[in-house]
Amino acid sequence: MRIDIKTAVDFLRENDDYLILMHASPDGDTLGSGSALCLALQKLGKRAKAVCPDVIPHRFDYLFKAIEPMDFEHKNVVCVDIADTKLLAEMKSTGDAAQLAIDHHSSHKDFAKKEYVEPESAACCELIYAVIKELGVTIDKDIASCLYTGIATDTGCFKFTNVTPRTHSIAAELIANGADFGAINYAMFVVKTQGRIKLEQETLKNIQFFADGKVAVITASLALIDSLPDIDTDDIGALANIPREIAGVEIGICVKEKKAGVFKASLRTSDNFDAAEIAQNFGGGGHARAAGCSFNGTTMEKAVEKIVKASVEAVEKQK
Amino acid sequence: MRIDIKTAVDFLRENDDYLILMHASPDGDTLGSGSALCLALQKLGKRAKAVCPDVIPHRFDYLFKAIEPMDFEHKNVVCVDIADTKLLAEMKSTGDAAQLAIDHHSSHKDFAKKEYVEPESAACCELIYAVIKELGVTIDKDIASCLYTGIATDTGCFKFTNVTPRTHSIAAELIANGADFGAINYAMFVVKTQGRIKLEQETLKNIQFFADGKVAVITASLALIDSLPDIDTDDIGALANIPREIAGVEIGICVKEKKAGVFKASLRTSDNFDAAEIAQNFGGGGHARAAGCSFNGTTMEKAVEKIVKASVEAVEKQK
Repeated sequence: MRIDIKTAVDFLRENDDYLILMHASPDGDTLGSGSALCLALQKLGKRAKAVCPDVIPHRFDYLFKAIEPMDFEHKNVVCVDIADTKLLAEMKSTGDAAQLAIDHHSSHKDFAKKEYVEPESAACCELIYAVIKELGVTIDKDIASCLYTGIATDTGCFKFTNVTPRTHSIAAELIANGADFGAINYAMFVVKTQGRIKLEQETLKNIQFFADGKVAVITASLALIDSLPDIDTDDIGALANIPREIAGVEIGICVKEKKAGVFKASLRTSDNFDAAEIAQNFGGGGHARAAGCSFNGTTMEKAVEKIVKASVEAVEKQK
Repeated sequence: MRIDIKTAVDFLRENDDYLILMHASPDGDTLGSGSALCLALQKLGKRAKAVCPDVIPHRFDYLFKAIEPMDFEHKNVVCVDIADTKLLAEMKSTGDAAQLAIDHHSSHKDFAKKEYVEPESAACCELIYAVIKELGVTIDKDIASCLYTGIATDTGCFKFTNVTPRTHSIAAELIANGADFGAINYAMFVVKTQGRIKLEQETLKNIQFFADGKVAVITASLALIDSLPDIDTDDIGALANIPREIAGVEIGICVKEKKAGVFKASLRTSDNFDAAEIAQNFGGGGHARAAGCSFNGTTMEKAVEKIVKASVEAVEKQK
């Protein structure tokens, strides 16, 4: 059942023993949402823990430093930034039993008893910010850094068109409250390992253009990834943005080999194209400007062919 | 004489026939400041024109579209974002006769009759925003886009530590007033020509590290630049940021050959080092995190040797 923020906050205030779930292949928004909500609930004197089905990349370690480790049997599951419990991988059944979901994806599929969903929010952390304010918890330096992380990462550091005046107003308050934004932005948007620079250079070598340069695709095979030392899942994830950064490209695609026969396509689109719509052709989803889908039991060539065909068709349809 | 915003606004309100000067090698902040102030003065019914001694890169064309071209003899010169009239190149003498300077550089050298300088502002456009508000001019879509451009470009799209809560609060208002931030950010921070990608790849090939990887330097010779089609001054300017983006680098240096025997070194530093201080060794200047200096009548090798030596000494001094 869809609910408003007041009902969500009443639920959180009246109950206890929270397991907060963050999605697999975690990003800054799910991790920032989970860590901020966990800190806020603990500050209210509640028991809470934030759990992710996947290993959390080390660059996000700071989000969890102020959380008190608590050992308890959870009574209430809260999902943050989770559009679909498929994104919980092996924790799907735990997510399906959730009492509350807080999310901002337009592709959100209801699964929890109570659903507080606002697709017009740039980041789930905008909703968590509002929830924490409504709970009456002071946004200290730690919570501010968690919320800033989600807002910055889901907006490409305020670059994307999902940003609203509210996004900047919240950022102003988070910075005033001590968010360590300089270090966060450096870690999230600036610094690259030498391995990552190599990875980017290698994938750019095999770039292919279609539809008069409006569609571009790069690929990253397991062979390439395994050949490069000191790269991590973040480095590989960041490849998704590269093709769309080239002048003239409106649909940028990156196809990565996840394991033998399994491929993940990531799409980034201009305002003229709906990335989620293209991904939905293959059972995927996401946002209008950033989405993804998977291809199983196939080859890189065939996966590329399929996603390129759907993308070129989107260009043709627009003419 | 240093003045406050009220005196600056009184001066602008009481006079007319303004020549607004923007610095050579123009960036988004001087161009956004000049265009926004020009639009605001014209909206007040005054005659105003904004002039830059250098050609303005085409990606900034939108800033000047709403300005009404006016032919008149200027009576008052206003300099925006100009730390030193040396930065006006052949228009230096015009700048030296300025009635008003509005600037945010800590290295600002007084030259105008009245000087409104606030080094704690992330961008000169923050000051121009305050001036326009104080003038009582409504910030329409055009002015909002000009101001947003300066604020976004001087903060690396809100990434750098010069950002304050005020920076985000102003951005919130500019977006609410129609600033075309999605297109601006795409043009300023995202899109790269294929030539630029090639330029970046080539300069990364010759990267050198010093002081245990804390200092990194790349170079761009005229021979390299001339060998690449479809690159422009923006593409070359953006090289300055690359070395500091590599993990572990605290002082990133890019040395570019401007013409035979003339080299420009650009420095980008972590919070631990003062870029302007290093540049001042060679008669340069700028901000604490971003500065530059020139070497004349020398070779690339010697220019690199000098700026690297000063940078390595800064690292040694800190130990």
